[in-house]
Amino acid sequence: MKKKEFLEVKENALKSLQDACVAEKVDQGILPILTLINRIEGFYTSSSCAGRIVLLEIPQIGDKKAATFLGIWHRLIEPREVQIAATKASTGLLWLLAQAPILHIGAETLELADRMLKTAISCGFKNSGVKSIGKKIILEICSTERLDAPIGRDGRLFCEEKYLSLLVEISNKIIGRSQEKIGRFAKKIGNFNDFQ
Amino acid sequence: MKKKEFLEVKENALKSLQDACVAEKVDQGILPILTLINRIEGFYTSSSCAGRIVLLEIPQIGDKKAATFLGIWHRLIEPREVQIAATKASTGLLWLLAQAPILHIGAETLELADRMLKTAISCGFKNSGVKSIGKKIILEICSTERLDAPIGRDGRLFCEEKYLSLLVEISNKIIGRSQEKIGRFAKKIGNFNDFQ
Repeated sequence: MKKKEFLEVKENALKSLQDACVAEKVDQGILPILTLINRIEGFYTSSSCAGRIVLLEIPQIGDKKAATFLGIWHRLIEPREVQIAATKASTGLLWLLAQAPILHIGAETLELADRMLKTAISCGFKNSGVKSIGKKIILEICSTERLDAPIGRDGRLFCEEKYLSLLVEISNKIIGRSQEKIGRFAKKIGNFNDFQ
Repeated sequence: MKKKEFLEVKENALKSLQDACVAEKVDQGILPILTLINRIEGFYTSSSCAGRIVLLEIPQIGDKKAATFLGIWHRLIEPREVQIAATKASTGLLWLLAQAPILHIGAETLELADRMLKTAISCGFKNSGVKSIGKKIILEICSTERLDAPIGRDGRLFCEEKYLSLLVEISNKIIGRSQEKIGRFAKKIGNFNDFQ
Protein backbone atom coordinates (compact mmCIF):
# COMPACT_ATOMS: atom_id res chain seq x y z
CA MET A 1 0.00 0.00 0.00
CA LYS A 2 1.30 3.44 -0.92
CA LYS A 3 1.99 6.09 1.75
CA LYS A 4 -0.91 8.25 0.56
CA GLU A 5 -3.31 5.32 0.58
CA PHE A 6 -2.21 4.30 4.09
CA LEU A 7 -2.75 7.84 5.38
CA GLU A 8 -6.29 7.80 3.95
CA VAL A 9 -7.04 4.47 5.65
CA LYS A 10 -5.64 5.84 8.93
CA GLU A 11 -7.69 9.02 8.64
CA ASN A 12 -10.88 6.98 8.12
CA ALA A 13 -10.01 4.77 11.08
CA LEU A 14 -9.48 7.82 13.32
CA LYS A 15 -12.80 9.26 12.15
CA SER A 16 -14.60 5.98 12.96
CA LEU A 17 -13.00 5.93 16.41
CA GLN A 18 -14.08 9.50 17.04
CA ASP A 19 -17.66 8.72 15.94
CA ALA A 20 -17.67 5.64 18.19
CA CYS A 21 -16.45 7.79 21.11
CA VAL A 22 -19.22 10.34 20.55
CA ALA A 23 -21.76 7.48 20.44
CA GLU A 24 -20.20 6.10 23.66
CA LYS A 25 -19.44 2.80 21.94
CA VAL A 26 -15.77 2.68 22.97
CA ASP A 27 -14.71 1.01 26.23
CA GLN A 28 -13.29 3.83 28.32
CA GLY A 29 -10.56 1.61 29.75
CA ILE A 30 -8.97 1.09 26.37
CA LEU A 31 -9.17 4.63 24.98
CA PRO A 32 -5.81 5.90 26.37
CA ILE A 33 -3.82 3.06 24.74
CA LEU A 34 -5.69 3.53 21.43
CA THR A 35 -4.83 7.24 21.50
CA LEU A 36 -1.16 6.43 22.16
CA ILE A 37 -1.02 3.97 19.25
CA ASN A 38 -2.77 6.34 16.84
CA ARG A 39 -0.17 9.02 17.65
CA ILE A 40 2.60 6.81 16.24
CA GLU A 41 3.46 7.21 12.57
CA GLY A 42 2.66 4.11 10.54
CA PHE A 43 -0.06 2.69 12.84
CA TYR A 44 -3.78 3.07 13.46
CA THR A 45 -6.26 1.16 15.58
CA SER A 46 -9.50 -0.46 14.47
CA SER A 47 -12.17 -2.35 16.46
CA SER A 48 -10.79 -3.04 19.93
CA CYS A 49 -12.20 -4.19 23.23
CA ALA A 50 -10.98 -3.80 26.81
CA GLY A 51 -10.93 -6.91 28.95
CA ARG A 52 -14.44 -7.86 30.03
CA ILE A 53 -16.59 -10.28 31.98
CA VAL A 54 -19.60 -11.57 30.06
CA LEU A 55 -22.69 -13.62 30.91
CA LEU A 56 -23.75 -15.27 27.68
CA GLU A 57 -26.73 -17.43 26.79
CA ILE A 58 -25.94 -19.72 23.88
CA PRO A 59 -28.12 -22.48 22.33
CA GLN A 60 -25.08 -24.66 21.58
CA ILE A 61 -21.27 -24.44 21.44
CA GLY A 62 -19.99 -22.26 18.67
CA ASP A 63 -23.43 -20.96 17.69
CA LYS A 64 -22.39 -17.41 18.42
CA LYS A 65 -24.90 -15.88 16.03
CA ALA A 66 -27.73 -17.04 18.24
CA ALA A 67 -26.01 -15.99 21.48
CA THR A 68 -27.52 -13.35 23.79
CA PHE A 69 -25.43 -11.11 26.06
CA LEU A 70 -27.18 -11.04 29.43
CA GLY A 71 -24.40 -9.02 31.08
CA ILE A 72 -21.22 -7.23 29.96
CA TRP A 73 -18.87 -5.69 32.54
CA HIS A 74 -15.60 -3.89 31.78
CA ARG A 75 -14.71 -3.83 35.48
CA LEU A 76 -14.45 -5.98 38.60
CA ILE A 77 -17.82 -7.45 39.59
CA GLU A 78 -19.70 -9.09 42.48
CA PRO A 79 -21.30 -12.59 42.27
CA ARG A 80 -24.68 -10.94 42.95
CA GLU A 81 -24.45 -9.07 39.62
CA VAL A 82 -24.15 -12.36 37.73
CA GLN A 83 -27.16 -13.77 39.61
CA ILE A 84 -29.25 -10.69 38.75
CA ALA A 85 -28.19 -10.77 35.07
CA ALA A 86 -29.04 -14.50 34.96
CA THR A 87 -32.68 -13.77 35.81
CA LYS A 88 -33.05 -12.55 32.20
CA ALA A 89 -32.12 -16.00 30.86
CA SER A 90 -34.59 -18.18 28.93
CA THR A 91 -33.32 -21.29 27.08
CA GLY A 92 -29.81 -22.57 26.34
CA LEU A 93 -26.53 -22.82 28.18
CA LEU A 94 -25.34 -19.95 30.36
CA TRP A 95 -21.61 -19.24 30.11
CA LEU A 96 -19.54 -16.98 32.30
CA LEU A 97 -16.61 -15.65 30.27
CA ALA A 98 -13.67 -13.53 31.34
CA GLN A 99 -11.91 -12.19 28.29
CA ALA A 100 -8.58 -10.40 27.92
CA PRO A 101 -8.47 -7.19 25.85
CA ILE A 102 -8.32 -7.47 22.05
CA LEU A 103 -6.71 -4.67 20.05
CA HIS A 104 -6.66 -4.50 16.26
CA ILE A 105 -3.83 -2.42 14.84
CA GLY A 106 -3.18 -1.54 11.20
CA ALA A 107 0.47 -1.13 10.24
CA GLU A 108 2.01 0.60 7.24
CA THR A 109 4.82 -1.90 6.68
CA LEU A 110 5.65 -5.48 7.66
CA GLU A 111 8.72 -4.24 9.53
CA LEU A 112 6.59 -1.97 11.71
CA ALA A 113 4.04 -4.77 12.21
CA ASP A 114 6.81 -7.13 13.35
CA ARG A 115 8.15 -4.56 15.84
CA MET A 116 4.71 -3.86 17.28
CA LEU A 117 4.02 -7.61 17.53
CA LYS A 118 7.27 -8.22 19.43
CA THR A 119 6.54 -5.26 21.74
CA ALA A 120 3.05 -6.62 22.51
CA ILE A 121 4.33 -10.16 23.15
CA SER A 122 7.04 -8.81 25.48
CA CYS A 123 4.28 -7.08 27.53
CA GLY A 124 2.46 -10.39 28.04
CA PHE A 125 0.08 -10.34 25.06
CA LYS A 126 1.22 -13.80 24.02
CA ASN A 127 -1.81 -14.64 21.90
CA SER A 128 -0.97 -11.88 19.40
CA GLY A 129 -0.46 -12.32 15.68
CA VAL A 130 -0.78 -10.77 12.24
CA LYS A 131 -4.30 -11.49 10.99
CA SER A 132 -3.87 -10.13 7.47
CA ILE A 133 -0.75 -9.55 5.39
CA GLY A 134 -2.52 -8.77 2.13
CA LYS A 135 -3.17 -5.18 1.03
CA LYS A 136 -3.87 -4.13 4.60
CA ILE A 137 -1.59 -5.35 7.38
CA ILE A 138 -3.67 -5.98 10.51
CA LEU A 139 -2.33 -7.11 13.89
CA GLU A 140 -4.42 -8.65 16.64
CA ILE A 141 -3.06 -8.08 20.14
CA CYS A 142 -4.41 -10.44 22.79
CA SER A 143 -3.26 -12.36 25.86
CA THR A 144 -3.98 -15.92 26.94
CA GLU A 145 -5.72 -15.64 30.32
CA ARG A 146 -9.39 -16.48 30.12
CA LEU A 147 -12.24 -18.27 31.75
CA ASP A 148 -14.96 -19.98 29.70
CA ALA A 149 -17.22 -21.81 32.12
CA PRO A 150 -20.81 -22.99 31.63
CA ILE A 151 -22.70 -22.10 34.83
CA GLY A 152 -26.34 -22.85 34.07
CA ARG A 153 -28.97 -24.12 31.68
CA ASP A 154 -32.45 -22.99 30.67
CA GLY A 155 -32.55 -20.07 33.06
CA ARG A 156 -31.22 -21.93 36.11
CA LEU A 157 -27.73 -21.51 37.58
CA PHE A 158 -26.46 -24.96 38.47
CA CYS A 159 -23.39 -23.89 40.36
CA GLU A 160 -23.44 -23.35 44.11
CA GLU A 161 -22.99 -19.85 45.51
CA LYS A 162 -19.50 -20.73 46.75
CA TYR A 163 -18.48 -21.93 43.30
CA LEU A 164 -19.94 -18.84 41.61
CA SER A 165 -17.93 -16.69 44.04
CA LEU A 166 -14.77 -18.50 42.99
CA LEU A 167 -15.54 -18.04 39.29
CA VAL A 168 -16.14 -14.33 39.84
CA GLU A 169 -12.91 -14.07 41.90
CA ILE A 170 -10.96 -15.65 39.01
CA SER A 171 -12.73 -13.45 36.44
CA ASN A 172 -11.82 -10.36 38.45
CA LYS A 173 -8.18 -11.49 38.58
CA ILE A 174 -8.16 -11.86 34.79
CA ILE A 175 -9.52 -8.31 34.40
CA GLY A 176 -6.91 -7.03 36.88
CA ARG A 177 -4.05 -8.74 35.06
CA SER A 178 -5.35 -7.41 31.73
CA GLN A 179 -5.25 -3.87 33.05
CA GLU A 180 -1.66 -4.39 34.25
CA LYS A 181 -0.64 -5.62 30.80
CA ILE A 182 -2.35 -2.67 29.09
CA GLY A 183 -0.36 -0.43 31.46
CA ARG A 184 2.95 -2.09 30.55
CA PHE A 185 2.09 -1.90 26.85
CA ALA A 186 1.16 1.81 27.13
CA LYS A 187 4.51 2.53 28.76
CA LYS A 188 6.45 0.81 25.97
CA ILE A 189 4.26 2.38 23.27
CA GLY A 190 5.08 5.80 24.71
CA ASN A 191 8.73 5.25 23.75
CA PHE A 192 7.99 3.61 20.39
CA ASN A 193 8.90 6.61 18.23
CA ASP A 194 12.33 6.92 19.93
CA PHE A 195 13.46 3.69 18.30
CA GLN A 196 12.26 4.45 14.79
CA MET B 1 15.25 -16.13 3.49
CA LYS B 2 16.87 -17.66 0.44
CA LYS B 3 15.43 -20.79 -1.20
CA LYS B 4 18.40 -22.91 -0.11
CA GLU B 5 18.17 -21.68 3.47
CA PHE B 6 14.41 -22.38 3.57
CA LEU B 7 14.95 -25.93 2.29
CA GLU B 8 17.51 -26.53 5.06
CA VAL B 9 15.06 -25.27 7.70
CA LYS B 10 12.34 -27.49 6.24
CA GLU B 11 14.64 -30.52 6.19
CA ASN B 12 15.51 -29.98 9.87
CA ALA B 13 11.84 -29.59 10.75
CA LEU B 14 10.98 -32.85 8.96
CA LYS B 15 13.80 -34.61 10.78
CA SER B 16 12.55 -33.30 14.15
CA LEU B 17 9.04 -34.50 13.31
CA GLN B 18 10.35 -37.93 12.38
CA ASP B 19 12.35 -38.16 15.62
CA ALA B 20 9.27 -37.09 17.60
CA CYS B 21 7.23 -39.78 15.82
CA VAL B 22 9.77 -42.46 16.69
CA ALA B 23 9.73 -41.28 20.32
CA GLU B 24 5.89 -41.39 20.20
CA LYS B 25 5.72 -37.71 21.12
CA VAL B 26 3.38 -36.73 18.27
CA ASP B 27 -0.42 -36.82 18.73
CA GLN B 28 -1.58 -39.50 16.30
CA GLY B 29 -4.72 -37.54 15.41
CA ILE B 30 -2.73 -34.70 13.92
CA LEU B 31 -0.10 -36.67 11.99
CA PRO B 32 -2.06 -37.03 8.70
CA ILE B 33 -2.62 -33.26 8.35
CA LEU B 34 1.06 -32.55 9.22
CA THR B 35 2.13 -35.00 6.52
CA LEU B 36 -0.16 -33.32 3.98
CA ILE B 37 1.21 -29.85 4.80
CA ASN B 38 4.84 -31.01 4.67
CA ARG B 39 4.21 -32.41 1.18
CA ILE B 40 3.43 -28.92 -0.14
CA GLU B 41 6.30 -26.90 -1.56
CA GLY B 42 7.07 -23.80 0.50
CA PHE B 43 5.66 -25.06 3.81
CA TYR B 44 6.73 -27.15 6.79
CA THR B 45 5.19 -27.85 10.18
CA SER B 46 6.73 -27.33 13.59
CA SER B 47 5.39 -28.05 17.12
CA SER B 48 1.69 -28.86 16.79
CA CYS B 49 -0.97 -30.36 19.03
CA ALA B 50 -4.25 -32.11 18.27
CA GLY B 51 -7.29 -30.95 20.18
CA ARG B 52 -7.22 -32.23 23.75
CA ILE B 53 -8.95 -32.33 27.10
CA VAL B 54 -6.72 -31.54 30.06
CA LEU B 55 -7.04 -31.70 33.83
CA LEU B 56 -4.60 -29.18 35.20
CA GLU B 57 -3.55 -28.27 38.74
CA ILE B 58 -2.32 -24.71 38.92
CA PRO B 59 -1.30 -22.68 42.02
CA GLN B 60 -2.71 -19.43 40.58
CA ILE B 61 -3.96 -18.01 37.27
CA GLY B 62 -1.25 -17.62 34.67
CA ASP B 63 1.38 -19.45 36.74
CA LYS B 64 1.78 -22.07 34.03
CA LYS B 65 5.34 -22.93 35.02
CA ALA B 66 4.10 -24.39 38.28
CA ALA B 67 1.16 -26.21 36.67
CA THR B 68 0.85 -30.00 36.81
CA PHE B 69 -0.94 -32.04 34.16
CA LEU B 70 -3.05 -34.62 35.99
CA GLY B 71 -4.70 -35.88 32.81
CA ILE B 72 -4.28 -35.35 29.05
CA TRP B 73 -6.73 -36.94 26.61
CA HIS B 74 -6.66 -36.57 22.81
CA ARG B 75 -10.05 -38.26 22.53
CA LEU B 76 -13.59 -38.25 23.88
CA ILE B 77 -13.70 -39.03 27.62
CA GLU B 78 -16.03 -40.12 30.43
CA PRO B 79 -16.62 -38.04 33.62
CA ARG B 80 -15.22 -40.98 35.63
CA GLU B 81 -11.80 -40.48 33.98
CA VAL B 82 -11.65 -36.89 35.27
CA GLN B 83 -12.60 -38.04 38.77
CA ILE B 84 -9.86 -40.70 38.74
CA ALA B 85 -7.24 -38.24 37.44
CA ALA B 86 -8.30 -35.75 40.14
CA THR B 87 -7.32 -38.20 42.89
CA LYS B 88 -3.69 -37.31 42.05
CA ALA B 89 -4.30 -33.66 42.98
CA SER B 90 -2.59 -31.98 45.97
CA THR B 91 -2.78 -28.17 46.34
CA GLY B 92 -4.03 -25.42 44.02
CA LEU B 93 -6.94 -24.92 41.65
CA LEU B 94 -8.07 -27.75 39.39
CA TRP B 95 -9.01 -26.66 35.88
CA LEU B 96 -10.73 -28.70 33.21
CA LEU B 97 -9.64 -27.43 29.80
CA ALA B 98 -10.84 -28.41 26.35
CA GLN B 99 -8.46 -27.05 23.77
CA ALA B 100 -8.74 -26.86 19.98
CA PRO B 101 -5.77 -28.07 17.89
CA ILE B 102 -2.79 -25.76 17.40
CA LEU B 103 -0.65 -26.12 14.30
CA HIS B 104 2.54 -24.18 13.66
CA ILE B 105 3.44 -23.84 9.99
CA GLY B 106 6.56 -22.29 8.49
CA ALA B 107 6.10 -20.61 5.10
CA GLU B 108 8.68 -19.67 2.48
CA THR B 109 7.05 -16.39 1.43
CA LEU B 110 4.48 -13.94 2.79
CA GLU B 111 2.23 -14.65 -0.18
CA LEU B 112 2.14 -18.36 0.67
CA ALA B 113 1.62 -17.55 4.36
CA ASP B 114 -1.34 -15.33 3.49
CA ARG B 115 -2.91 -18.03 1.31
CA MET B 116 -2.50 -20.70 4.01
CA LEU B 117 -3.92 -18.32 6.62
CA LYS B 118 -7.02 -17.61 4.51
CA THR B 119 -7.47 -21.35 3.84
CA ALA B 120 -7.29 -22.12 7.56
CA ILE B 121 -9.72 -19.35 8.50
CA SER B 122 -12.18 -20.55 5.82
CA CYS B 123 -12.13 -24.01 7.46
CA GLY B 124 -13.15 -22.54 10.82
CA PHE B 125 -9.71 -21.92 12.38
CA LYS B 126 -10.67 -18.33 13.16
CA ASN B 127 -8.06 -17.75 15.85
CA SER B 128 -5.21 -18.14 13.33
CA GLY B 129 -2.50 -15.60 12.63
CA VAL B 130 1.10 -15.03 11.61
CA LYS B 131 3.22 -15.20 14.76
CA SER B 132 6.51 -14.14 13.20
CA ILE B 133 7.28 -12.21 10.02
CA GLY B 134 10.99 -11.75 10.62
CA LYS B 135 13.56 -14.06 9.06
CA LYS B 136 11.30 -17.05 9.57
CA ILE B 137 7.61 -16.75 8.70
CA ILE B 138 5.57 -18.79 11.19
CA LEU B 139 1.80 -19.24 11.14
CA GLU B 140 -0.29 -20.42 14.09
CA ILE B 141 -3.51 -22.20 13.12
CA CYS B 142 -6.12 -22.40 15.87
CA SER B 143 -9.87 -22.17 16.35
CA THR B 144 -11.89 -20.39 19.00
CA GLU B 145 -13.91 -23.12 20.76
CA ARG B 146 -12.65 -23.85 24.23
CA LEU B 147 -13.59 -24.54 27.77
CA ASP B 148 -11.53 -23.24 30.69
CA ALA B 149 -13.38 -24.09 33.87
CA PRO B 150 -12.06 -24.37 37.43
CA ILE B 151 -13.65 -27.50 38.93
CA GLY B 152 -11.93 -27.98 42.27
CA ARG B 153 -9.42 -26.81 44.82
CA ASP B 154 -6.78 -28.49 47.00
CA GLY B 155 -7.58 -31.98 45.83
CA ARG B 156 -11.37 -31.73 46.14
CA LEU B 157 -13.78 -31.42 43.19
CA PHE B 158 -16.39 -28.83 44.11
CA CYS B 159 -18.69 -29.43 41.20
CA GLU B 160 -21.59 -31.87 41.43
CA GLU B 161 -21.53 -35.06 39.37
CA LYS B 162 -24.27 -33.68 37.09
CA TYR B 163 -22.26 -30.52 36.44
CA LEU B 164 -19.07 -32.48 35.78
CA SER B 165 -21.02 -34.59 33.26
CA LEU B 166 -22.09 -31.44 31.45
CA LEU B 167 -18.53 -30.08 31.38
CA VAL B 168 -17.30 -33.38 29.95
CA GLU B 169 -20.14 -33.40 27.40
CA ILE B 170 -19.13 -29.89 26.24
CA SER B 171 -15.43 -30.84 26.19
CA ASN B 172 -16.23 -33.87 24.05
CA LYS B 173 -18.19 -31.65 21.64
CA ILE B 174 -15.18 -29.32 21.33
CA ILE B 175 -12.93 -32.29 20.50
CA GLY B 176 -15.50 -33.54 17.97
CA ARG B 177 -15.77 -30.16 16.26
CA SER B 178 -11.97 -29.85 16.20
CA GLN B 179 -11.72 -33.15 14.37
CA GLU B 180 -14.32 -32.00 11.83
CA LYS B 181 -12.33 -28.81 11.19
CA ILE B 182 -9.07 -30.75 10.79
CA GLY B 183 -10.94 -32.91 8.24
CA ARG B 184 -12.12 -29.88 6.26
CA PHE B 185 -8.63 -28.38 6.39
CA ALA B 186 -7.03 -31.63 5.21
CA LYS B 187 -9.42 -31.73 2.24
CA LYS B 188 -8.52 -28.19 1.18
CA ILE B 189 -4.81 -28.76 1.81
CA GLY B 190 -4.97 -31.77 -0.51
CA ASN B 191 -5.80 -29.39 -3.38
CA PHE B 192 -3.38 -26.65 -2.33
CA ASN B 193 -0.75 -27.35 -5.00
CA ASP B 194 -3.37 -27.17 -7.79
CA PHE B 195 -3.75 -23.44 -7.24
CA GLN B 196 -0.06 -22.57 -7.12
